[in-house]
Amino acid sequence: MAKIPQKIQIIPLGGLGEIGKNMTVVRYGDEIIVIDCGLMFPEDDMLGIDLVIPDITYLVENQDLIKAIVLTHGHEDHIGALPFVLRQINVPVVYGTRLTLGILESRLKEANVPTTNLKPVKPGDSIKTGFFQLGFIHVSHSIADAVGLYLTTPAGTIVHTGDFKLDHTPVDHKVTDFYKLAELGDQGVLVMLADSTNSERPGYTLSERSVGLTFDETFRNARERIIIATFSSNIHRIQQAVDTACRYKRKVAVLGRSMVNVVNIAIELGYLTVPEGVLIDIDEINNYPAASIVIVTTGSQGEPMSALTRMAMSDHRKVDITPGDTVIISATPIPGNEKLVSRTVDFLLRQGAEVVYEKASGVHVSGHASQEELKLMHNLIRPKFFIPVHGEYRHLKKHARLALDLGLPKENIFIAENGSILEFSQEKGCFAGKTTAGNVLVDGLGVGDVGNIVLRDRRQLSKDGILIVVVTMDKANGGVIAGPDIVSRGFVYVRESEQLIEDARDKISQALEKCELNHITEWAAIKSNIRDMLSKYLYERTRRRPMILPIIMEV
Amino acid sequence: MAKIPQKIQIIPLGGLGEIGKNMTVVRYGDEIIVIDCGLMFPEDDMLGIDLVIPDITYLVENQDLIKAIVLTHGHEDHIGALPFVLRQINVPVVYGTRLTLGILESRLKEANVPTTNLKPVKPGDSIKTGFFQLGFIHVSHSIADAVGLYLTTPAGTIVHTGDFKLDHTPVDHKVTDFYKLAELGDQGVLVMLADSTNSERPGYTLSERSVGLTFDETFRNARERIIIATFSSNIHRIQQAVDTACRYKRKVAVLGRSMVNVVNIAIELGYLTVPEGVLIDIDEINNYPAASIVIVTTGSQGEPMSALTRMAMSDHRKVDITPGDTVIISATPIPGNEKLVSRTVDFLLRQGAEVVYEKASGVHVSGHASQEELKLMHNLIRPKFFIPVHGEYRHLKKHARLALDLGLPKENIFIAENGSILEFSQEKGCFAGKTTAGNVLVDGLGVGDVGNIVLRDRRQLSKDGILIVVVTMDKANGGVIAGPDIVSRGFVYVRESEQLIEDARDKISQALEKCELNHITEWAAIKSNIRDMLSKYLYERTRRRPMILPIIMEV
Repeated sequence: MAKIPQKIQIIPLGGLGEIGKNMTVVRYGDEIIVIDCGLMFPEDDMLGIDLVIPDITYLVENQDLIKAIVLTHGHEDHIGALPFVLRQINVPVVYGTRLTLGILESRLKEANVPTTNLKPVKPGDSIKTGFFQLGFIHVSHSIADAVGLYLTTPAGTIVHTGDFKLDHTPVDHKVTDFYKLAELGDQGVLVMLADSTNSERPGYTLSERSVGLTFDETFRNARERIIIATFSSNIHRIQQAVDTACRYKRKVAVLGRSMVNVVNIAIELGYLTVPEGVLIDIDEINNYPAASIVIVTTGSQGEPMSALTRMAMSDHRKVDITPGDTVIISATPIPGNEKLVSRTVDFLLRQGAEVVYEKASGVHVSGHASQEELKLMHNLIRPKFFIPVHGEYRHLKKHARLALDLGLPKENIFIAENGSILEFSQEKGCFAGKTTAGNVLVDGLGVGDVGNIVLRDRRQLSKDGILIVVVTMDKANGGVIAGPDIVSRGFVYVRESEQLIEDARDKISQALEKCELNHITEWAAIKSNIRDMLSKYLYERTRRRPMILPIIMEV
Repeated sequence: MAKIPQKIQIIPLGGLGEIGKNMTVVRYGDEIIVIDCGLMFPEDDMLGIDLVIPDITYLVENQDLIKAIVLTHGHEDHIGALPFVLRQINVPVVYGTRLTLGILESRLKEANVPTTNLKPVKPGDSIKTGFFQLGFIHVSHSIADAVGLYLTTPAGTIVHTGDFKLDHTPVDHKVTDFYKLAELGDQGVLVMLADSTNSERPGYTLSERSVGLTFDETFRNARERIIIATFSSNIHRIQQAVDTACRYKRKVAVLGRSMVNVVNIAIELGYLTVPEGVLIDIDEINNYPAASIVIVTTGSQGEPMSALTRMAMSDHRKVDITPGDTVIISATPIPGNEKLVSRTVDFLLRQGAEVVYEKASGVHVSGHASQEELKLMHNLIRPKFFIPVHGEYRHLKKHARLALDLGLPKENIFIAENGSILEFSQEKGCFAGKTTAGNVLVDGLGVGDVGNIVLRDRRQLSKDGILIVVVTMDKANGGVIAGPDIVSRGFVYVRESEQLIEDARDKISQALEKCELNHITEWAAIKSNIRDMLSKYLYERTRRRPMILPIIMEV
């Protein structure tokens, strides 16, 4: 029988060098635990892409070793890739807290993926699977029921903080289990992986409860309807909105598909408490005076199809913005969304609403730990080795710097990449190679079929459109029978550019004649000639570079 | 002879409800003064567009009434449309300060537009043209030689602040002319137009000099090369970089086409003072120890083709980032550029540079007045009527609110739009209709030819590409001679989607047969059939909506 291994491997497959698609493999001997399985939203240059999931080649190749997938919380960047991954590989069990699995279950059902392997766990639970002892620790985050993890093996204990902040006055009264964290640190932690999102921010992240205070003040001053836009997953934020509404004797209506969905799951599972009669249907809001209404809605990121954005553009079937409405945008723009949010704010203001949206206004707090909380986590866990996770490079670098400042030796801190294979034993930690990792792009029903070539083409098409040249040629003698016909899209406004198109057609005819004269009959060569000539000609005339697509029909 | 008019019209043609393309018409009787003539950078959905200029139909129609164009300062959003506008209309004279005209002149030369009508002015100058008395007042901004304007007419005086901040310790020692502003206010100002950019920010904007202090501290701590990225137009920032370099006995090299350009103009005109021997060519930097080098470069907005970005990506012909370099990003991201800047920061960090980039780090201050400075401006000028300008809607609204809080009656405050015609007399101010205004999109050599249809097509192409169907049909009997052939770009990766394309081809053949059976011979109808059928079919199979382009060749 094989000796008991003294090494643990940690292989991040997503979440490093990016915000999104978090996924980490922990391997001990022939056993694998996968922590989280998230998706990432497409970058601006990933044209037409719906979402991005991690490349799981490593998991496909080692499918039989997987003991479990363990989820830290229900955000998309931690569970969103599961509908795809569970179609590709068999996994004995997926562990998560009840709210996390509740949200996951509805995603899996939408995607027609079986939901039989989901096993709920509670903070404080400890589960043995193979050589692993899996433990779950309650942490505060911007979604309820979030946990950090510890995985104990004969070679040592690994702690993964999950996404966390240290909120001393959490809305659900469930303070972080400091005792458990300190106990783990005391017993000895080999490696810690910790949330780097806010590592650039000095000080502490404000408590979620501070938003409740701001809600109270805003509600007190609002004379008409109140509309609160926030992330549908932020149950505690919604709870505070509901509590404040009750305090000011207002009814609450919920708007937006994902908001309605998550609120229902949360109420059903007991994570959101709404007194009898407070919740009304959106169709009923006009039965009450404006001063008695609160609408909780999606759209805090200015998402084009969201309820708030459609209301702002007077485009929502059920709700219009009326002058006197107070709109609270209870979120800050995720990097990349700043202009979308500003645009929504402008439209709301034009409709005569009061809008509370500025960072300093106290209507949003982050769900991630700032520097002082991170330092506390480090000094509670006191790991031998440290891997900053959940961040872009500068976040990881800053978090590594924090650990260094706290006294961890430089060689014990690992700024890794997706695919890095890191090995740890009591004596030593090191990089031990790389495995396949990267982005798999999802577009419509296609998973991974859109790659660089398709994206490159979409980029060219998006800039200057396409010009198609069709020629019908005689199979027998290679002469032109019909055409060249030109069709363009996204290049010029054809009605005003007729001369340009005519001139281009003449140029193509000349090129075809030249091919015939020089006995160039091979189609690839003819198309190449046309393409090069036209490309040069159109650039001279327009300084634009449309895609040029010569098509030869043989007859 | 006509009575002397008692009314002034103010018609913004750009800059309201947006940041960019500033242009305001002031009309008194049959005389027009145009204040500024700027461009705007394209919105994210203006695919392939290079820049946006104002629709100047109003100016074209009233060309003969234009007495002058007056420029407040040399930023692109105030002068960038002139190369286009001066090609369309004749203007007797363009007034601007020397640096402003120096920058403009190089733009006009690049565009082959004559530069004979440019007349330099100095702060303190007062010029009579027709019924207008034009006056120029020095203001501080993030470019040197910026002015505010006052236009005195028999009907009253108009003050336009230009872009401004109230910097009490400006780098060029030229403090804002508070006396002139107060004098104007004392004599009576009918209308003020003022810069709304920072109207949401409480307090004061920090002095430009505070950046110099931060430079000093950073230079003191830097052991190797220092690279400062900033806006090429911010001469005072560059001056402070040069001054600090001298203090620390470092040489300065300038990198980036626009940076080199503006620095040369500024030195020539005396706006930038660089002691003998301090400036070196970029090719010489390796002749000096790292600790003796400062590079001033473009790229503070993460612009893909800029020097800093290329250095970060190891893609610059002349300069590489070396570990130990200190890079200062002396700017904050313009809304929309946040991810570009983060990406550059990450790449620089990966190359081993220290990067100073955070807002709180003191390496950048705004060039626009915050709330307390705006209030001071209002209380100096004390206009009867007020039009907030240079801002998106929420900026204008906030600025209007400020004026209200200072005691201006609501009906004397005008939140206008581009194209609004505002009329003012000593008795009354009001909206008096609208004129043509809007965006003219510039793409390559084309001005205004790319409109909604072309953009709409580019958007569809960018999302899901294009699928082209070519059929050759017999002119005589309408039968199919060749095809259907299918070519796609940006839709699927063809090598992996052969079956899908085959199936689509079968479907098209069936549709063609059906058309023949039903005696549908009109091409438009046949194409329509193909398009509808294919659109539905491809969406079922892929959940994607490529543009579908049927082409029929007749033989």
